[in-house]
Formats: sequence, structure tokens, C-alpha cells
Amino acid sequence: MNHVVLGTDIGGTHMRLAVVDEQGAALHHLRRKTLIAEGAKVTSGRLMQGCQELMDWSRDRGCQVQAIGLGVAGRIDASQGKVLFSPHLPEMNGYPLGLELRERFKLPVVLENDANVFGIGEQWAGAGRDVRNWVGLTLGTGVGGCLILEGRLWQGSGLGSAGELGHMVIDPRGPRCACGVRGCLEAHASQSALLQGVHQAIAARALTEGPLLDHYRAGALDAATIYACAQAGDSLALELFQRMGWALGLALASLFSALGICHAIIGGGVSAGWDAFIEPLHASLAEHISMVPVDMVSIQRAQLGDDAALLGAARLAWQNLDEQAAGR
Amino acid sequence: MNHVVLGTDIGGTHMRLAVVDEQGAALHHLRRKTLIAEGAKVTSGRLMQGCQELMDWSRDRGCQVQAIGLGVAGRIDASQGKVLFSPHLPEMNGYPLGLELRERFKLPVVLENDANVFGIGEQWAGAGRDVRNWVGLTLGTGVGGCLILEGRLWQGSGLGSAGELGHMVIDPRGPRCACGVRGCLEAHASQSALLQGVHQAIAARALTEGPLLDHYRAGALDAATIYACAQAGDSLALELFQRMGWALGLALASLFSALGICHAIIGGGVSAGWDAFIEPLHASLAEHISMVPVDMVSIQRAQLGDDAALLGAARLAWQNLDEQAAGR
Repeated sequence: MNHVVLGTDIGGTHMRLAVVDEQGAALHHLRRKTLIAEGAKVTSGRLMQGCQELMDWSRDRGCQVQAIGLGVAGRIDASQGKVLFSPHLPEMNGYPLGLELRERFKLPVVLENDANVFGIGEQWAGAGRDVRNWVGLTLGTGVGGCLILEGRLWQGSGLGSAGELGHMVIDPRGPRCACGVRGCLEAHASQSALLQGVHQAIAARALTEGPLLDHYRAGALDAATIYACAQAGDSLALELFQRMGWALGLALASLFSALGICHAIIGGGVSAGWDAFIEPLHASLAEHISMVPVDMVSIQRAQLGDDAALLGAARLAWQNLDEQAAGR
Repeated sequence: MNHVVLGTDIGGTHMRLAVVDEQGAALHHLRRKTLIAEGAKVTSGRLMQGCQELMDWSRDRGCQVQAIGLGVAGRIDASQGKVLFSPHLPEMNGYPLGLELRERFKLPVVLENDANVFGIGEQWAGAGRDVRNWVGLTLGTGVGGCLILEGRLWQGSGLGSAGELGHMVIDPRGPRCACGVRGCLEAHASQSALLQGVHQAIAARALTEGPLLDHYRAGALDAATIYACAQAGDSLALELFQRMGWALGLALASLFSALGICHAIIGGGVSAGWDAFIEPLHASLAEHISMVPVDMVSIQRAQLGDDAALLGAARLAWQNLDEQAAGR
């Protein structure tokens, strides 16, 4: 019987699950609505149902599921298999998701922050394969981050929040972030920041016509539509993506100076707007860095798309099995 | 014969040298003017003379010098024993200081950035002894920094500049730094920043009398005199130290969020003004951090004073000997 693991990525609206082999190939996918508004119990139930389906699928093909890896947005207590605090899944705060899964399936379960498993995934099978030290950023509703140092995910002092790059303050006089602090990277470089920028222009009557306003009125304003407007030459959309690039360049300049490294990998849904922010990002980086030669800097696009986090979660599950086998 | 090493700290105006035993005790000190304005060759000659004196001192007491550790302000190529770029010792740029010393004394010589050896020193024998992950800051003419991660000095990707925390941009609309970038931590939290603040007030005719102006006219304005004025209640001096604390709190908030750690150790000559900046530092940290519980944060004062860097350089020399003995 072939051995496989399950990798899952639990986001604010959807959960994605896959059967993953030891080489990092996703053999079969599932996608389900999270339905978190109905409570953590409902979401957990949907997750268990999805896992059961993938186990059945695996068994029918002569594969045995050995472990489950979970990536969840928020601060995680990995040792207890618990979500400590999740701004985008608040109903999940304190919920023993990992423990529940472990008891139901009698399998090892590992839990990790979604941006951290993004980093592990890209390192395993994506843009980070041959890079020893790098900064990972995921641009989505918010901005997630991770640090891969000496080829390993940096986990800090066990506070459950290493790599919170979205909450670096890049401009103390900038806009207020969802976390309450003024001037976080996330308040400049996320889908929320793009939407906020459009809302402010509407409130200030600076936006009185055009496709951005039409999308807003149709309830269809998101990062993708704002990017489409930028591509069509809309000045506000262009400005918002320029601000995103400026902010990302500032944060990376400070991180590169602090860490003495020069490599970043950027993913997440909003990174689809790459063309609209990468030039301002490089310009801002060059303007704000003095101690790392700017010609050594490399900013790469993530390669695994939507699969990065679930592959990373699967990788963690494999590593955990290896460590158990080694008796550690 | 007892074994010892030499630890040295080469700053912009003075070099300090000591004979250091394996337990981290400095047995005998020397202090010499650097005289860098007379050229790197002169400084190097004075360093060699100092080392020779300490070797003679050691031999007379039955001790044999095994290795030399050098701490130098600037970007270092440790593998080549070379100073790549030193803003405060520009004559030293590209100078093979380590190599010269190695050839003269036929001893192993290790070279490292001064803020990095500060970190190693405080970790060996000072405030960092029992802390696994911490941020080190040295407040002097500029702001130096280091990261101790998992109990070891973080050296980044070998760019010669890990831990350049003074060149994190904390306020992109803030004052310009000596490095050319606008808004670096160093432009807010160094002796240079304090002096610049006084100069600007004089130029703007906002400072027309009082002890700060008297010190300035007497050519005696430095961090110590500005701190004395702050203690006496001078409003400009107080404001400059408050800005220093605000900037340090901002930088530490971003670093703690990024690294998921919560400990900092602050040293350097300007940290003598601790009472004038520590409260604004804590207030700023609390204002700018959201992902690390603020009650877990610990900001400590360095314990080794002027000896931190030379003890750290000595520690590196010991480690290097151990590694050679282990055949690495």
C-alpha cells in the first residue's frame, strides 16, 4: 500500500484539501465553502467530511493516509493543535481543531499558520527550492508572511506568530490597519487596502464615475476588478497598486537590512496584480536600502498558486512522521 | 602555560584591546586613539603595537595568546578578513586588516562587525546569557544592531551586513540618514540624530538661549550633555530623547512582529540616557504592536558596558579555535 498524507488550507471563505504524496505531488483535490459564519463546529464538521472523502478516495486507489497537515489563517499553538487568534476566522479562536481531527481519525495532525505553510510549500516544490534564506509574503484579504532561514521555517520564540510581516509598521503616519495599529504593511498592500482606497475616494467624492465606481455599485469590487481597471489605465487603480509596491519595497528594504538577506517570494491571490506593483516595488526598495547591494536583490513570484499552503501543510505532516519515526 | 586570546574593539575614535580568558574575564585592558584620519596603515600599525604589548604582558604572566578577535564598525567580509565598507572608518574600506594581523603574529584572526560582537559579548557574559532569541541595539554615533537567533549570532546570507537595524526605515517621511536614505532608525536614535536635532533648532532660531546652546558654542555638545540637559528639564533635549524612544519602539515592534520574538537588549554609549527614552520606547512599542502580546515584551539594558564588543570578539576567537580543533 502506498503512503500519502492530507494537506489542507483553511481560509476565510474556502477550505482546500488534497491527497499529497512524499514527492510533493497533489494527487486529488477537494474545495469546500468554510461556512465559518455558522460557527466553528460547522466548519470543523465540513473539514472532517472532506478528509473522510479523501481517505476513501485514497483507499480505493490502494493508498493509505498517514497523517494530516492543516494550514489555518491566524496565530496557532502548534503544540496544542489550537487556533489562538484568527482575524479572518474569529469563530475559530481557541477552537481545538487539530485535537478534534486527531481523535476522529486516530492519525497524527499538525497545525500551522497559513502563511507559514505557504513558505514551506514554496520551499518544498516551488520558487524557494534552491534559496537558503528568504522572505515570503502572501497578498490576499490581508498580508501574510513567513521567514525561511537556513532552509527552515523560522518559528520564533513559540509565541504562535512568527513572520507576521503584514503587521510591520512601514509608515507610522499611514492608514489604520484592521489590527488597530496605524501604518501596517497590510493597510497598504492587501485587498482590504485596495478596497479601502476606493471607498475613501468615493466618500471624498473624488470618484464620481467610471468602472471602479460601477464595480463598487454592483458589489463586485475586489482586487481582481481593481487590477483590471489599473490595466485599463484607471488613475486611482494605478495609484493604489503603486502604493502597494511602495509599501512592499519599504518593508522588504527594512527586512533585508535587518536580516542581511536579499531574496523574497511573493504569492497570494492579490499577487495576480504583479505587473501593476512590481516596478514601484523595485523603485521603493532601491530608495530605502543602503546596506545590501541592490543588484543582489531578487524578488520572485511564487510558483504553486493556490496549492502552496496545502502542499506546505502536507510537507509538515511528512516531516512530523519522519521525526516520530526517528524517535524524536 | 595558560591559554588566552586578545579581544579588540575598533571604533571611530578609539580602539580598545584586552587579554581575555576562556571564561570571559578581561584580564588586562589597553585603550588607544585610532587616528584613522592618518590612514588605515597608521591605525593598523597602532593596533599591531597594542596587540604586541598585550602579548608581552601575557607572556610575562605565564599566559600564551592563542588567537585574536577583531570587532570593527562596518560591513565585514569575515572569510577574507577584510573591511568592506565602514561609514565611520572610511579609510579602512577594503583594507585587509585581519590578514595583516594574521601574517604579523602567525595566529588565527577573526573579524566581525562591532554590533555583532556586542551581541556575542552580551550573550556570553552579559544580559543575553539566558535568552535564546533577542534583538541587540547599540546606540552610539550611529545605531548598530544584531540578532541572536536560537542562541547564535544571525549572519544572514553572507552579505557582510546582517543585523543592520539602524538602517531599517521606520518613518519614510522622517529625517535623512547619513547613509542617504530618509527615515532610518539611526536618523532618530543615535548621537548624530540628537546633534542634528539641536543644529536644526539653532538654524531655525527656535533655540536662542540656554545650556544646549552654550554647550554647542563651546564645542561640547554630545549625547551626554544633551542627556544632562534633559535631566534638568530642557524641553528640546527631552523632546529629542522622546523621539529616540518613539523610533526605537517602532523598530522593535516591527522586528518582534516579523520574528515572533519579544526580547531586546540595548547598549552603547548613548544608552546612558536610558531614563530619558525608555518610557516613550515602551509607549511606542505598545502602540505599534498587535501580534505579540505586549506583556511578554522585555527590553533590557546591556550589562558589559564598554567591554561588550571586545569580549564578543574574544569569544569569536575562542569559538574559532574550538572549530579548528574539531577539524571543521
